[in-house]
Amino acid sequence: MTALPPLAVAMGDPAGIGPEILAKAWARRREERLMPFFAVGDARAVTKVWDGPIAHIDSPSGATAAFNDALPVLTVEDAGEITPGRPDLEGARCALHSLELATGLTREGAAGALVTGPVSKAQLYLLGFTHPGQTEFVAERVGVATSATVMMLAGPTLRVVPVTTHVALAKVPGLLSQALLVAKARVTARALVRDFGIAAPRLAFAGLNPHAGEQGAIGREEIDIIMPAIETLRAEGIDVTGPLAADTMFHGRARTLYDAAICCYHDQALIPLKTLHFDEGVNITLGLPIVRTSPDHGTAFGIAGQNRAEPGAMIAAIRLAAEAAQRRATLAQA
Amino acid sequence: MTALPPLAVAMGDPAGIGPEILAKAWARRREERLMPFFAVGDARAVTKVWDGPIAHIDSPSGATAAFNDALPVLTVEDAGEITPGRPDLEGARCALHSLELATGLTREGAAGALVTGPVSKAQLYLLGFTHPGQTEFVAERVGVATSATVMMLAGPTLRVVPVTTHVALAKVPGLLSQALLVAKARVTARALVRDFGIAAPRLAFAGLNPHAGEQGAIGREEIDIIMPAIETLRAEGIDVTGPLAADTMFHGRARTLYDAAICCYHDQALIPLKTLHFDEGVNITLGLPIVRTSPDHGTAFGIAGQNRAEPGAMIAAIRLAAEAAQRRATLAQA
Repeated sequence: MTALPPLAVAMGDPAGIGPEILAKAWARRREERLMPFFAVGDARAVTKVWDGPIAHIDSPSGATAAFNDALPVLTVEDAGEITPGRPDLEGARCALHSLELATGLTREGAAGALVTGPVSKAQLYLLGFTHPGQTEFVAERVGVATSATVMMLAGPTLRVVPVTTHVALAKVPGLLSQALLVAKARVTARALVRDFGIAAPRLAFAGLNPHAGEQGAIGREEIDIIMPAIETLRAEGIDVTGPLAADTMFHGRARTLYDAAICCYHDQALIPLKTLHFDEGVNITLGLPIVRTSPDHGTAFGIAGQNRAEPGAMIAAIRLAAEAAQRRATLAQA
Repeated sequence: MTALPPLAVAMGDPAGIGPEILAKAWARRREERLMPFFAVGDARAVTKVWDGPIAHIDSPSGATAAFNDALPVLTVEDAGEITPGRPDLEGARCALHSLELATGLTREGAAGALVTGPVSKAQLYLLGFTHPGQTEFVAERVGVATSATVMMLAGPTLRVVPVTTHVALAKVPGLLSQALLVAKARVTARALVRDFGIAAPRLAFAGLNPHAGEQGAIGREEIDIIMPAIETLRAEGIDVTGPLAADTMFHGRARTLYDAAICCYHDQALIPLKTLHFDEGVNITLGLPIVRTSPDHGTAFGIAGQNRAEPGAMIAAIRLAAEAAQRRATLAQA
């Protein structure tokens, strides 16, 4: 086992549930066997909602020693007045600088992987943030085009990749192309080997149309776009099945037949994932030189500061980040 | 309790799994507390795959007395040579005549409700069958326009209504209209009262776009079509929520907040239903003067005759048909 540096966890919006779930994850570090991590943000956001021990650290190197007894926090700046459930611009600025610092520390190797807490995009946009979300910001900072990255959502029994994401459903058929599907599947297959330790990954493509188009009777995208993409990938030696009828590929027995489902659009991927694993979903960005994960939920301002937030997804995000980073470190040594 | 006549179960394609799951459902009649039913089809299709007792009956009235000791079968005609897993035209003709007779017996009140086994549409089309499926055939026979019916899929913890069904995804946005949504929701709300015994049904509308369009940022159908439909329904006193983000409305806690989800397209409804309840899904046609249900799966020719078919969905279809018919009979008496 290579000794991995501690993980950097950007706290997200200080008025959201990020600080609370981070503290709760630390409190469960032993039973969940979490590797050392440190929070990046304003420590006061944590003390507002949690009365456990905090260790103020100056650099990632202090985190490992402190982790056993306290939640290590690297304070990036003063987030101003913090009121859980009430986002403001100072808080959003703090969240952005936390993300920036945590990303930089991971890129330079001082942190073993990056975990990002939930932010308010609306507040970030008001600050002049020009990226659609944190993923694009991170990709740029580590020098990768967003188009070369893949968003995967992972739960205990299902991994899904939506090849199109936050676009209107009416635009989805026009955005699908053989090249897009091939590119996303290649990155996914590589990541399943490198980050998930699956030697011979099996991909399953979902059809776009009901019953995967019924041989062209209800839509031709399966024949014109998806099948040619599958053939290209197979010629490269990638194990791909499909296009499958999307409604019958996510039940228990069906899920054992593949390692990741490549889906045509947001809800086709996210409906099964969140129906099955609402409190445990992890967003992992594939194709980056660093490992980056995130709990697959938002800031939940409506319940912030009420001690009601479930840390399950944050714990899963920390665990997956650690496992993937460990696998990469081991591969790099081999 | 009104004494309901026995249910009519059309056997479906004699070479599919219909005969097997019907026989297995009968074999479990006691532990599943199924009310008396009779099969309509060629009895030889059952004896090919099952060695339990069969009672040949001439009319539905003989079914109730026979049901305790044998599976009552009303033979409609000779299906020719029957080979499980090998559909042919004679079999399809027998399936069609079984459907016709079972529908007629239910319409005239000799049978308490109609349950239809799986048929091969491909074979029916070769016979000259001009309806898209069994539902449209049944609707015509009982004098209801297909547009006035609603397909609901029901499982133990979820009921869904796809307002568009077997059409290419690219056509879905153009097919959605306020009038369509209102019509489907009205029929659904009425059926939840009449057939499901829910006094004050709660409907939840799914958005078409990711995150229900994020206030128009990713698609306007929620604003232009779905919200006006919801307002119309609310003005009629129907309890409707939405449009909800489709990915977060089907997990355990979310499902307790409504009695039926009104979905924009096939996979939006069928993915969560089949992910959760693959072996127990029932298709029920709402808006008919008779009760009609069907197990939500196909002929499964690939496993026919191998004693591998699961009767769970058929049992659920028989139970739901009996419950709905009983509720209607009780309401009619009150």
